[in-house]
Amino acid sequence: MLNVKAYAATSPTGPLAPTTIERRDVGPRDVLIEIRYAGICHSDIHTVRGEWGPVSYPLAPGHEIVGIVAEVGPEVTRHAVGDRVGVGCMVNSCRECDACRRGEEQYCANGMIGTYGAVDVDGTLTQGGYSTHVVVTEDFVVRVPEALPLDAAAPLLCAGITTYSPLRHWKAGPGRRVAVVGLGGLGHMAVKLARAMGAEVTVLSQSLKKRDDGLRLGADHYHATGDPGTFERLAGSFDLIVNTVSAGIDLDAYLSLLAVDGTLVNVGAPAEPLSLNVFSLLMARKSFAGSAIGGIRETQEMLDFCAEHGIGAEVEVIPAEKINEAYERVLASDVRYRFVIDVSTLN
Amino acid sequence: MLNVKAYAATSPTGPLAPTTIERRDVGPRDVLIEIRYAGICHSDIHTVRGEWGPVSYPLAPGHEIVGIVAEVGPEVTRHAVGDRVGVGCMVNSCRECDACRRGEEQYCANGMIGTYGAVDVDGTLTQGGYSTHVVVTEDFVVRVPEALPLDAAAPLLCAGITTYSPLRHWKAGPGRRVAVVGLGGLGHMAVKLARAMGAEVTVLSQSLKKRDDGLRLGADHYHATGDPGTFERLAGSFDLIVNTVSAGIDLDAYLSLLAVDGTLVNVGAPAEPLSLNVFSLLMARKSFAGSAIGGIRETQEMLDFCAEHGIGAEVEVIPAEKINEAYERVLASDVRYRFVIDVSTLN
Repeated sequence: MLNVKAYAATSPTGPLAPTTIERRDVGPRDVLIEIRYAGICHSDIHTVRGEWGPVSYPLAPGHEIVGIVAEVGPEVTRHAVGDRVGVGCMVNSCRECDACRRGEEQYCANGMIGTYGAVDVDGTLTQGGYSTHVVVTEDFVVRVPEALPLDAAAPLLCAGITTYSPLRHWKAGPGRRVAVVGLGGLGHMAVKLARAMGAEVTVLSQSLKKRDDGLRLGADHYHATGDPGTFERLAGSFDLIVNTVSAGIDLDAYLSLLAVDGTLVNVGAPAEPLSLNVFSLLMARKSFAGSAIGGIRETQEMLDFCAEHGIGAEVEVIPAEKINEAYERVLASDVRYRFVIDVSTLN
Repeated sequence: MLNVKAYAATSPTGPLAPTTIERRDVGPRDVLIEIRYAGICHSDIHTVRGEWGPVSYPLAPGHEIVGIVAEVGPEVTRHAVGDRVGVGCMVNSCRECDACRRGEEQYCANGMIGTYGAVDVDGTLTQGGYSTHVVVTEDFVVRVPEALPLDAAAPLLCAGITTYSPLRHWKAGPGRRVAVVGLGGLGHMAVKLARAMGAEVTVLSQSLKKRDDGLRLGADHYHATGDPGTFERLAGSFDLIVNTVSAGIDLDAYLSLLAVDGTLVNVGAPAEPLSLNVFSLLMARKSFAGSAIGGIRETQEMLDFCAEHGIGAEVEVIPAEKINEAYERVLASDVRYRFVIDVSTLN
């Protein structure tokens, strides 16, 4: 057992604080990663505060992890000491179900094993990336190409793949009109990725406050959803809408923006059920769908795509002692566009 | 102007009664059809009773029409006097929008023109198939193959195409597990068609009352949704669920029956909005979609497919004077599986 430094929550209401957590010994197919950066995802906050169900404390969150391989088990073939690597939202899965065999471990029929707050195959509770080291089975570790700065790469492991996967699945590309709802951590990645895939990209944001940013990041158009005229003017205009906003939205209004055969895909889930009028789907064969992160193979493909197109997240790097402050700023949407913890400050 | 006999509603609450309605003169590209059979669709009842919005009376409903061509305009090339033909839910569209150009006139950006209760391009109010004759532009008239009995063919024009189109679009076929919710006019067609396409077909019906029928029509499996154990046992089992029930359903429960990448498609719309938990979609990239009838080209394809596979609707042929009684029986779900009016009884 390894004892490593971490920043962890000890209750649903208290602040995160420095502590020590345990990592399992490096097994035959495990990789020990010296973590360099860990992104702060809104999910971290929901989870440590118990908003998504009861949690065992102490809990170190963080599932946007990049670092350097420090040690490998004797049977490891995919990674070597010194490699730049990443770990995203899952650290294991059953590997036997249809989804796992297809390389879509995120849809594992037996439930993927989350990077923190889950029980791994060895029975230990998983702990996330707000920590100096992590031990992960090699199959759930991806390569971070040299062309990507490590800090800007960290958010790709969740925000990047969460938007890349639905953009690919619903064929964002030349001639396709893609709207991105919300310009936050996920939304800004969706804009960059959809643009790099060749789609015509529109941001739909509450106001025009971040318009200049949106256009700079690659959007062709930017509209305020707070302006009711927007929905009339853009009716039937999009082939794909990627909704990155976790709060509830007026589904019928957004569905009205889709063209025939268009899809509105949610990459987050509001806590409350949403309501929709089936007529909103019926008269143009529209779909309302959901998508969760991506498989390991697709995560690697996404990192390679980002390296090729020079895409990283827009990050604000912070020391560990600012994590609690960063949480408040995330909740206030006061971040452009992702906080990333410099894990060297944990030492 | 032609005066023709019809059975029409004169108010939202009164019974339908014999009357005379007007048909436009046969234009250069029009076809005059002597109607032989007209199916009774639940939509007919909703419409004449004003449940889908205000209606001009008298109104003869009916959009499952088959008959024989009695006269053609001088520029007609697709049909000839004596041909067996059909007319479905629409009699015109703009013909210029993307959807029309793709042959998906049902999704016309300017709104398809319904077979009854709509305003046609010449400004007249359209009247449906509970009538001895109808005049329709040739492009919205389809051929009824010789192999199909005319009475059993009538319901194909709405119930048939409404289920055929989503089954094709979402690729029902060998290796695909398709569930059909509801074994009524639409459901029984969905079972026959999905079976003929080679899919593994399951009926999900409130009770096991129609089980023998369902299996005889081609279903491989039949389950009662009234049994709560059904949802547990069948979790994750279907690639496609075609919901033919217009009443509201528990979307989350039905979505739980889908496998990864599965689609639940509604072919009818409940009057009230439905509610769903986005998590039901998210964790297996599921979709909730809608589909409306099919285009003219696809309607022809469906009729040819039915002829090839010996598929017709299961019908109970009635004389016109029994229409009001039939309406009550439709509302009580007391029909196996479609009433078809013998239009010769109108004379």
